[in-house]
Amino acid sequence: MDSRDRVGISLDELQLAARNHGMPLEALRYPITPIGLHYLLIHYDIPLADDLDWTLEIGGLVDRPSTITLGHLKARPAEEITVTMECAGNGRARLDPRPVSQPWLLEAVGTARWRGAPLRPLLEEAEIGEGAVEVLFTGADHGREGGIDQQFQRSLSLEDALESDAILAYEMNGVPLPPQHGFPLRLVVPGWYGMASVKWLARIDLLEAPFSGYQQEQSYRLRQHEDEPGEPLTRMLPRSLMVPPGRPDFLTRERIVDSGPNVLDGRAWSGLGEVASVQVSTDGGRSWDGAAVDGVDSGRWAWRGWSFRWTAEPGTYELCCRARDSAGNEQPLEPPWNLGGYANNSVQRIPVTVV
Amino acid sequence: MDSRDRVGISLDELQLAARNHGMPLEALRYPITPIGLHYLLIHYDIPLADDLDWTLEIGGLVDRPSTITLGHLKARPAEEITVTMECAGNGRARLDPRPVSQPWLLEAVGTARWRGAPLRPLLEEAEIGEGAVEVLFTGADHGREGGIDQQFQRSLSLEDALESDAILAYEMNGVPLPPQHGFPLRLVVPGWYGMASVKWLARIDLLEAPFSGYQQEQSYRLRQHEDEPGEPLTRMLPRSLMVPPGRPDFLTRERIVDSGPNVLDGRAWSGLGEVASVQVSTDGGRSWDGAAVDGVDSGRWAWRGWSFRWTAEPGTYELCCRARDSAGNEQPLEPPWNLGGYANNSVQRIPVTVV
Repeated sequence: MDSRDRVGISLDELQLAARNHGMPLEALRYPITPIGLHYLLIHYDIPLADDLDWTLEIGGLVDRPSTITLGHLKARPAEEITVTMECAGNGRARLDPRPVSQPWLLEAVGTARWRGAPLRPLLEEAEIGEGAVEVLFTGADHGREGGIDQQFQRSLSLEDALESDAILAYEMNGVPLPPQHGFPLRLVVPGWYGMASVKWLARIDLLEAPFSGYQQEQSYRLRQHEDEPGEPLTRMLPRSLMVPPGRPDFLTRERIVDSGPNVLDGRAWSGLGEVASVQVSTDGGRSWDGAAVDGVDSGRWAWRGWSFRWTAEPGTYELCCRARDSAGNEQPLEPPWNLGGYANNSVQRIPVTVV
Repeated sequence: MDSRDRVGISLDELQLAARNHGMPLEALRYPITPIGLHYLLIHYDIPLADDLDWTLEIGGLVDRPSTITLGHLKARPAEEITVTMECAGNGRARLDPRPVSQPWLLEAVGTARWRGAPLRPLLEEAEIGEGAVEVLFTGADHGREGGIDQQFQRSLSLEDALESDAILAYEMNGVPLPPQHGFPLRLVVPGWYGMASVKWLARIDLLEAPFSGYQQEQSYRLRQHEDEPGEPLTRMLPRSLMVPPGRPDFLTRERIVDSGPNVLDGRAWSGLGEVASVQVSTDGGRSWDGAAVDGVDSGRWAWRGWSFRWTAEPGTYELCCRARDSAGNEQPLEPPWNLGGYANNSVQRIPVTVV
């Protein structure tokens, strides 16, 4: 698809693109994404919330249901984790035919330091009842989707809830959560696509049967046809992104790079394993060379920096990068199509002109 | 235009929509827009900047050229001003035919508390030379636009530079400028469209002839044809926006409102005068009633809140609001077309279903 091709976006989708923020790709240079540059995907409206009277209900199949104030949550032992979070719909607008929803290209990602109370001890203190199989998280955001009036709700299996290092976060990058990131409280499930990390968290319920709500059974599933159940989206597939080198054209974002020694760099992540390698191509994916990958400075759930030295001769190039993880998953050259337009982790392609 | 009409956005424009952030309209509820919700329009890339070695050059037609460190600027007497800032291209995507550029609908606005050093005394201390007519502001952001390699540059007439209450801001909402808002230093020209408030400010030059660079002579002008010089964009036309009431549909953003007493509210502003009145229509602009307009709490350059009591009966409605300023300017019902798609301040229209 040429960059000037009309992609047939509707006003509806353009409204979504205006209110849901991507991370400008030059912000890949920051190991921790500054507030205001992290991606945002907000299904309904940002709810108006007051941290002084916010409470979290823990109920359902537990022996000790409770209502916890934000003050009590903040008084509990806290953990801070650095987490790279990506929208499951990242890459959607590059699919053909293009699934109709938030039209992300590549920018729906960010990395933050989230601080809060670990989820597991809270569940254990509630004394999980015999027969509980899932944990349901309910946000305060309210709207209609797929014809259904709903609050945003997502569940985790009991095992994932206990074993996933999830926290209930009230701080982001050292300050209280901004409204758009879930003020005053959100779930953060490291390694998972963003839909699992329920914002404006109001309730946690233990369930005796799998949750069958809209965001679990209709949305966020990999399917080829409407009439199949499909597979649920869970952890992030590997992806690498490059800081677009040189300087951009305003409209096309095409890059002009000065000839001579250049360093190409970026970040890579996977929710399925460690980043095992990053490769770079300067010829549109025909040949590949290994990039240097940084050490694990910010823990298991943060993206890792990579860099590659390139001596650029005048001409035109298509720069690409691809990551492989320790579980053997690698980014594909061509996007795998699915009905909802999820998990398109095909390689980034950056046209550059070296002058 | 129906909301599902395809507006023929290209991938180029979609890339711009993803990296340039709109303010989700529910954020109209905040008198000061939280960081991360204020609109962003960034022509090239966000430059990497270090506040410790940032300097501002003041030169051109002055008797005392100087190089000022950020530390020295911060040691000068400071002012804080609350400023509503809107992109000159706000409303562009509603024009037909649609000018090709950043495809804003209505969301390119925000209000912040900017703190910094007033511009006027800095210019006076530089001893403005005889014959100076304009002041040129140069940002550190660099790219290509209209085929021209450039840093972002805009000028003000000497009179506007001295009389406009402009400041060189290093704080936004009480914290250092975020990278995307011009860290570590930007110009803020209250009352003007955002292009005047040059980010990543590196140089100020007094000129003996009007600046003829791209952002002044080619871009940001009201023209009907390519071959006319057109009128420069300067101060913001009046506009009012409404917090979309009730709850949204995810994809269409259509609103569902409960019947009974409702309060419709929002904000209004003008760079050309005080907000004189705000009117609300519940029938698509056929009839209008006056809204209550809040007092001037945050100074001359901040938007003003307004509210309107509406007893909603079940049915479908098109809600509208329009502002008039003390200079007699009023928002039009239909958008005035121009080649660049600027200054479309036609009234907002919100379809709602009352249930």
